Amino acid sequence: MIEPTTTARPQAPAAVFDWLDEAAELRARAGLTRTLRSRPADDPVLDLASNDYLGLTRHPAVTEAAAAAARRWGGGATGSRLVTGTTALHTELEVELADFYGVEAALVFSSGYAANLAALTALTDPDTLIVSDAYNHASLIDGCRLARAQVHRAPHADPAAVARALAERAEPRALVVSDSVFSVDGNAAPLAELSAAARSGGAALLVDDAHGLGVLGPGGRGALVGAGLAGEPDTVATATLSKSLGAQGGAVLGPRRVIRHLVESARTFIFDTGLAPASVGAALGALRLLRAEPERAARAREVAALLAERLTGAGLHASTPDAAVVSVRAPGPEQALAWAADCRTAGLAVGCFRPPSVPDGYSRLRLTARADLTDAQISLAVATLARTAPRP
Amino acid sequence: MIEPTTTARPQAPAAVFDWLDEAAELRARAGLTRTLRSRPADDPVLDLASNDYLGLTRHPAVTEAAAAAARRWGGGATGSRLVTGTTALHTELEVELADFYGVEAALVFSSGYAANLAALTALTDPDTLIVSDAYNHASLIDGCRLARAQVHRAPHADPAAVARALAERAEPRALVVSDSVFSVDGNAAPLAELSAAARSGGAALLVDDAHGLGVLGPGGRGALVGAGLAGEPDTVATATLSKSLGAQGGAVLGPRRVIRHLVESARTFIFDTGLAPASVGAALGALRLLRAEPERAARAREVAALLAERLTGAGLHASTPDAAVVSVRAPGPEQALAWAADCRTAGLAVGCFRPPSVPDGYSRLRLTARADLTDAQISLAVATLARTAPRP
Repeated sequence: MIEPTTTARPQAPAAVFDWLDEAAELRARAGLTRTLRSRPADDPVLDLASNDYLGLTRHPAVTEAAAAAARRWGGGATGSRLVTGTTALHTELEVELADFYGVEAALVFSSGYAANLAALTALTDPDTLIVSDAYNHASLIDGCRLARAQVHRAPHADPAAVARALAERAEPRALVVSDSVFSVDGNAAPLAELSAAARSGGAALLVDDAHGLGVLGPGGRGALVGAGLAGEPDTVATATLSKSLGAQGGAVLGPRRVIRHLVESARTFIFDTGLAPASVGAALGALRLLRAEPERAARAREVAALLAERLTGAGLHASTPDAAVVSVRAPGPEQALAWAADCRTAGLAVGCFRPPSVPDGYSRLRLTARADLTDAQISLAVATLARTAPRP
Repeated sequence: MIEPTTTARPQAPAAVFDWLDEAAELRARAGLTRTLRSRPADDPVLDLASNDYLGLTRHPAVTEAAAAAARRWGGGATGSRLVTGTTALHTELEVELADFYGVEAALVFSSGYAANLAALTALTDPDTLIVSDAYNHASLIDGCRLARAQVHRAPHADPAAVARALAERAEPRALVVSDSVFSVDGNAAPLAELSAAARSGGAALLVDDAHGLGVLGPGGRGALVGAGLAGEPDTVATATLSKSLGAQGGAVLGPRRVIRHLVESARTFIFDTGLAPASVGAALGALRLLRAEPERAARAREVAALLAERLTGAGLHASTPDAAVVSVRAPGPEQALAWAADCRTAGLAVGCFRPPSVPDGYSRLRLTARADLTDAQISLAVATLARTAPRP
């Protein structure tokens, strides 16, 4: 975090936010300015920037399900899930999600962020040590901050370090926390080894499968199903409905008693309005489509592999994808930003990740391998990236 | 928080969540069990439990706008607002919200919870003292916990205490934080006095107008407009799109530099998927309807006054409503739960608030005065509440 230097008390009402301008100036000097760009409904740009891994967001089965849900149930859920915010449609989605993921129960939240805050705060207490991967998503990090537990930040993807932290702890309870697929580079966590480390240390395992659901495992059932860990009594997953499932929202998936505990004590569940019916309907539509067409998951992985292979062939530093995300290294934040802008000018949207969004300080472009990309689109994307790449 | 007593390390994977069952048992013994009830689309029950203050959630102008947005833009926003998650529809809503609220700019979030976490974390730093009303909503309290600021919990609705805390502080910066309308009892904060206290203490003012927008101020423009404070350079509001506006989501409203700072640094903005287009569309539809029919706001207040008057006439301990919420005291948590259940059996849905959802430890029923309630429905609700009331 960049801190401005003003320390005097503001003298006039208009001055109380002067420090925000100083902070903006510091960000600008560091090349870290971010601005919103609004996109049109019929954007001609080739999208390799979204998290729409299966290309379902605009599929008629998804948008018509959203429209039908809004008409039948209303524009909003009208209250907290515990008051008026649980419709029969929410329950339907939770039952189908749990079945698809191979767990006893699921609980839907208004966002994946809220689901992660809920799991981390409600499944820990002051007698708990959380062991959290250093590269975990911001929502997991914020969940650790909100929890009243002790937190140990473990080196990235290092089950041995996790085992050591668990063995040395004083707290009776422990929770190991990791993304299943890390959002920026798209690399997968060593779930089997993490689970073994957690078990030998008497800890539970919490896995954020935001980037695994719909892409990994048989028929896109997710990373935990792929690792044979879904449905285990000591394992809990979180997921988003806003990526492969083309909607909005998040979910916690796991043993029934975990879900019951969240219903009764998770603040981001109890004190939040239920997910809008249209988003519930969209997620249900996408889930049913994925069950009917399970090959979509394999295609997303195939597109990622093709992208990475061709980018490497073009001399770029592409990651080896474990799921549907490929990242390409840039020399620095300003070059990354310029590269992404040049791609956009050439008709290609790519993500651009710079500090502090990347844990290791390296700026890079982030490419999403959507299942509905054609071979010609993949070639076009690679050619554009190669042509606009910054010279070393 | 009720803590279980288990302290030994679990020996088997299946045992790591045993403590959750103990916690459930403790909650059950304290009469604090909460369960989800899913409602049908055509619920015959008279709803005085939701936050649908203007009765717009199922208005065709809202549901058709949601359906049209899903069809045109897709089931989800596809990414973070800074990557692909800002559609032209998001921008349209932000422009119209800012105009309606009389501020320079607005920023839409996936929930009011996320908006509050964003405002509290991004507008404070370790050199900031947050002075927070003791009865503030859970999302404001969690925002205080997440912020890296110092936090002072001020007595409820006490501007003199706020002024003292500001005068005695060591931190150069300060932020005074309050709900505009407190969610459980529906009483209004003394905004003019809070603003004066903040100004004389060199502090900014952050007001959560979740229960004020659509109900208070001219044409439902909210509590800050009503108090003449919207658009002030030291004042920021947050709001929800899920109550009066019949959708889902939250917003921060204030000076342009505050909004720019949130875009560039608020983690619950940067690392969350954008609000689903259907919810954006629904909120826009409701906002335009409210502009066209501003009398809806006054009617919500009128219904609340009628409800409170008749409940008091029936011998019940009803609050004096400042907005659209009326609360009725119950002797204890179990009686409150039984009372709400008896109302439901009689065809009336009311909210039931028990510890820890109430800051003062008193259980009560919470009634929502929707603008679309008829006089006959108000009479029916009062008669039902009086008939089912627990004997003292």
